[in-house]
Amino acid sequence: MEQRVSVITLGVTDLGRARGFYEALGWSTGAAPGDDVVFFQAGGLVLALWDRANLAKDSGVSDSGGWGGVTLAHNVRSPDEVDAVLDEARRAGAEIPRGGGETFWGGYSGMFVDPDGHAWEVAHNPRWTLGDDDTVTLG
Amino acid sequence: MEQRVSVITLGVTDLGRARGFYEALGWSTGAAPGDDVVFFQAGGLVLALWDRANLAKDSGVSDSGGWGGVTLAHNVRSPDEVDAVLDEARRAGAEIPRGGGETFWGGYSGMFVDPDGHAWEVAHNPRWTLGDDDTVTLG
Repeated sequence: MEQRVSVITLGVTDLGRARGFYEALGWSTGAAPGDDVVFFQAGGLVLALWDRANLAKDSGVSDSGGWGGVTLAHNVRSPDEVDAVLDEARRAGAEIPRGGGETFWGGYSGMFVDPDGHAWEVAHNPRWTLGDDDTVTLG
Repeated sequence: MEQRVSVITLGVTDLGRARGFYEALGWSTGAAPGDDVVFFQAGGLVLALWDRANLAKDSGVSDSGGWGGVTLAHNVRSPDEVDAVLDEARRAGAEIPRGGGETFWGGYSGMFVDPDGHAWEVAHNPRWTLGDDDTVTLG
């Protein structure tokens, strides 16, 4: 199995609300208004939004109903940019369980949670390389 | 917020077991044996393994204890390659809730679940482009 990820699918309960949230963050999709799945080209992978009950069934798993041990991160180039993205997420309707601040690992980050409970860390890690091609490389 | 994902962190209960599972799939990490987080460079992003309780606390969320609405996918170039990766995952200790087969969306896929309950679809989507640089582009 090659060492890569192609798609992250987030299960949602209200697709229109979820799509609107990511669009409010500035993301764009080619999905039609009535499509039952929304794909965002997110750098070299695809982030998909789909009905959570269908995703659980398709995945062959039981849905425990809340957060399930996966957190995403969006790395940026400075602490100021962390704060700016967190503000953007708050305005779009996210909860902010942890505002921007210095971290135990020597960087700066905060956390937002989308309307379906999916957690995103917004982080500046001075030891990792954030490329112009949207890629992150371990330091 | 730029339209990209930098890190996917999977919460795990036994880091050695989780690391061993991904290594058995052929993945490699620069983490030292005693490190409390394991980073895999996965194409242009980083896949991290970290203690699930710590991840929940850091994320500011309650842990519902099971699958929580996120499924990853690993796209490959043919149906045969889907079956080969699923076999590899089974040998590494994954559960296979859905073996390889044709899908409602016109592709071929199956699903494996890692030892911590994280679901991965292994898929061949003939309408998407899988680049030599490990990226997936929407058709």
